[in-house]
Amino acid sequence: MGLLLAEVRRNPLLWLLVFVPAVFVAAKVSPAAHTLLFVLSVLAIVPLAALLSHATESVAAKTGDAAGGLLNATLGNLTELVIAITALRAGQTMLVKASIAGAIVTNTLFMLGGSFLLGGLKHHVQEYNRVSARLQAGLLFLASVALLVPSAVASADSAAGAAFTQHLSVGLAVLLVVAYALGMLFSLKTHRELFASAGHGEEGEAPWPLGVALATLAGVTVLVALVSEIFVESVQKAAEDFGMTPAFVGFIVVALVGGAAEIASAFSGARKNRLDLSIGIALGSASQIALFVAPVLVLLSYVVGPAPMDLRLWPGAVVMMLIATLTASLVTNSGRSAWFIGVLVLMVYLVFAMTLYLLPPSAA
Amino acid sequence: MGLLLAEVRRNPLLWLLVFVPAVFVAAKVSPAAHTLLFVLSVLAIVPLAALLSHATESVAAKTGDAAGGLLNATLGNLTELVIAITALRAGQTMLVKASIAGAIVTNTLFMLGGSFLLGGLKHHVQEYNRVSARLQAGLLFLASVALLVPSAVASADSAAGAAFTQHLSVGLAVLLVVAYALGMLFSLKTHRELFASAGHGEEGEAPWPLGVALATLAGVTVLVALVSEIFVESVQKAAEDFGMTPAFVGFIVVALVGGAAEIASAFSGARKNRLDLSIGIALGSASQIALFVAPVLVLLSYVVGPAPMDLRLWPGAVVMMLIATLTASLVTNSGRSAWFIGVLVLMVYLVFAMTLYLLPPSAA
Amino acid sequence: MGLLLAEVRRNPLLWLLVFVPAVFVAAKVSPAAHTLLFVLSVLAIVPLAALLSHATESVAAKTGDAAGGLLNATLGNLTELVIAITALRAGQTMLVKASIAGAIVTNTLFMLGGSFLLGGLKHHVQEYNRVSARLQAGLLFLASVALLVPSAVASADSAAGAAFTQHLSVGLAVLLVVAYALGMLFSLKTHRELFASAGHGEEGEAPWPLGVALATLAGVTVLVALVSEIFVESVQKAAEDFGMTPAFVGFIVVALVGGAAEIASAFSGARKNRLDLSIGIALGSASQIALFVAPVLVLLSYVVGPAPMDLRLWPGAVVMMLIATLTASLVTNSGRSAWFIGVLVLMVYLVFAMTLYLLPPSAA
Repeated sequence: MGLLLAEVRRNPLLWLLVFVPAVFVAAKVSPAAHTLLFVLSVLAIVPLAALLSHATESVAAKTGDAAGGLLNATLGNLTELVIAITALRAGQTMLVKASIAGAIVTNTLFMLGGSFLLGGLKHHVQEYNRVSARLQAGLLFLASVALLVPSAVASADSAAGAAFTQHLSVGLAVLLVVAYALGMLFSLKTHRELFASAGHGEEGEAPWPLGVALATLAGVTVLVALVSEIFVESVQKAAEDFGMTPAFVGFIVVALVGGAAEIASAFSGARKNRLDLSIGIALGSASQIALFVAPVLVLLSYVVGPAPMDLRLWPGAVVMMLIATLTASLVTNSGRSAWFIGVLVLMVYLVFAMTLYLLPPSAA
Repeated sequence: MGLLLAEVRRNPLLWLLVFVPAVFVAAKVSPAAHTLLFVLSVLAIVPLAALLSHATESVAAKTGDAAGGLLNATLGNLTELVIAITALRAGQTMLVKASIAGAIVTNTLFMLGGSFLLGGLKHHVQEYNRVSARLQAGLLFLASVALLVPSAVASADSAAGAAFTQHLSVGLAVLLVVAYALGMLFSLKTHRELFASAGHGEEGEAPWPLGVALATLAGVTVLVALVSEIFVESVQKAAEDFGMTPAFVGFIVVALVGGAAEIASAFSGARKNRLDLSIGIALGSASQIALFVAPVLVLLSYVVGPAPMDLRLWPGAVVMMLIATLTASLVTNSGRSAWFIGVLVLMVYLVFAMTLYLLPPSAA
Repeated sequence: MGLLLAEVRRNPLLWLLVFVPAVFVAAKVSPAAHTLLFVLSVLAIVPLAALLSHATESVAAKTGDAAGGLLNATLGNLTELVIAITALRAGQTMLVKASIAGAIVTNTLFMLGGSFLLGGLKHHVQEYNRVSARLQAGLLFLASVALLVPSAVASADSAAGAAFTQHLSVGLAVLLVVAYALGMLFSLKTHRELFASAGHGEEGEAPWPLGVALATLAGVTVLVALVSEIFVESVQKAAEDFGMTPAFVGFIVVALVGGAAEIASAFSGARKNRLDLSIGIALGSASQIALFVAPVLVLLSYVVGPAPMDLRLWPGAVVMMLIATLTASLVTNSGRSAWFIGVLVLMVYLVFAMTLYLLPPSAA
């Protein structure tokens, strides 16, 4: 508890923890105040995600390199996973699918572009390890393509029916999880030297003792799940009040909320001229969502959801994901960055956000 | 006037200036001879564009580096802009949109491919600055993507209506102009050392005195505007006589006529083994059309046109622009060129031209 | 004959030659046993393709470098060509088109991915000539794009009619063959030093005497044509029995059968740490199908087929070809490979195969 308090004093993001009790009280007192509940739940999830991230790293630091790496990689997107499972149980498969696509686009464009811009404002030209960035961008491209094939083929061939998409999604989910397991073997065991030190932690952050870390991990996951329930319930109604389309909410809002902790780490790394760290977080997290989070959700939808979820996305999302991964491949190709590269990558993200915001609801 | 005459004697392209009075006389005498007027106006625009280009450079040379660079970059596609504004005033938004897409495709495929081929026929293997080429290809890719998003999303989601496309186009135009201004700041101020000497001018060409240059700039712009009016009026009718589709006229003919001066500079640079210059002109000019000319035309359409213009292109044009910018990214990746690379890039352009030529008019 | 026997003893693949007489006997005895005939004809084509490959190389070795290279390149996909011509004569243009697209996808994804995986299981990290790989991936990208433009534009613009596609396909075929001839001039004459030793042969394989090689070439081509007739007749019916869609048969089965000999060479090169050889075979063969086999089949369809064939592919095939060539460009970009890259490339291939297997027949 003392450790947590020390952490809170050191990290201003954690002051937001005060919104965790606030959202529970508000949900009890006025369960119909959707906009209020939406804002409070967003403010509560952000610090919880940061705690979850630090707890995972502390456990990973104690359990040795290989197991720790596995844990870090698998729980790295725990917040996204918990929010998505909550939405799945509420039968909101459209929201889940939009948030998967949105998380990949947000990680590649917003996290990468923001890192380039913030880093470039402080440092004239930043160099980074081209070989490692290319390898990660290549993995991301192939992972996204595998995820996109059913949508692309199904949308191109309109005669393909729903049963086809469902079968294909399950087969694909199994294939992606196998590829993910092999990828773990590759990056943690056989070729670990290629993935040097892309830990998510801030330098100088002391890991917690194992007991505290495990207890935090368990407790905070439960809290995230509880807050997510309020978030998922209120988000659609609140979005209408703000004039947001459902596509915008899933793609942009959920993705930014779920990834807040990682975004903070990536931006901080870029400011410290450690662009390799930022690129590792951005591309690694995006790959993980394509190869692990998405297929796990498809398979879980048969267990926890009222209806199974397939991987068929609406055509605009397919276009955006393809453009985002191609952009990541092209901009990380040169091994050098300057602020304007960041501006252009962020501009593509803004164009996507603007498109989704203006899109008539029926089209998404 | 003596300077102009000296220039005319040195540059055979300027002998075509004789067609400027010819086209005005012809327009008075036989205003219904569309094919004749079309041919004469094309022959008149080409030398005017060359004069405009040299006058811009002369002004730029006198006004110092930063302001000169700004002027050069902004007025570099003045001919295209004047032709497009004339078409906009005549209410021909389809022609304007086709010529925007066509100018990007022509600059990347025809100008780049022709430079590789002509340079490669004289020099066995040509090397160029890979870092700078990659940076420019990256800017072009992001600029084109931003321009394409509305078309791609709108065409994929057919429920999205015309009002959506119109709002999105205006929002996007503002975003693109902001990005263009930041890009000027980047290439002329904060990181000018990365864009070494990509001036459009021929070596050994003496700049004109400021007065002559400014007078030429003003006078020739008016002449281009007047000839453009005849060109825009006659082009559709003439195209029918030649059996050309409207898509082919906008995409290929207008783009080649408007870019003639730059094409000549790029090819001449390649022959002199200065491939960096050629790549700079081709990719820089294409980026400028995407980031500056296109959004300015959208915003101007609210002022000068009978109807506002959006950025929604027909699907075939989207495919062609994406392929052209991807091709530019891939072929400039290696830092080396040989003649066959040029043949293949030109072949893609020929395939596009052939497709547009054969396309039934109703499909464009 | 003694040489052939020695060859058979040395190369276990050739033991399959026993299926050549078997398939002819079976076709006489029970012409309605489609599944049996399909299996036997596949087993017979594989060793014939290997013989054809060795005979071509032997002739090439005797006729000197330039002519030999030309022969090797032109006859390298002779098996695919003979099978496709047989299908063309039977009026099965859909099967021919699927097998063209499938051969490009199989060569880039299965052959390249398998080489990376098999090579990577034996060698920790494999390096290869990046410049040459990039050049070949660039050629493949441009060749595929040229091949794809009619499908992409025609499918995007649904108003474009069948006559348009037919005219465009013929014009394109002529253009592709010209580009292929120029490519031969480039790689065998003006810039041969860039394409070092990408011969298809195994090291230590002695070439046959010219007489034996020419006789084998002629005789085996006839045999392949005869077996192909049985294969093409039985494949559709057999596919139904196995529950395969026509798209799966053309795209996957025919492509794997036709390319078996080259696949064996590429995999063997990768195991011997000669990844340049594997990449040369995979990308070179794919380019050749796009630039030479496909246009020749279009032009031949006017002579041998009951109906002319155009180049319009169904949309799913276009998506797969674009993804396959982009994947090849991106993964060969770094000059280094490890086993997991192979896993991911193969995964994309598996995803394609799974999609085609599950696709309802009406959609293909």
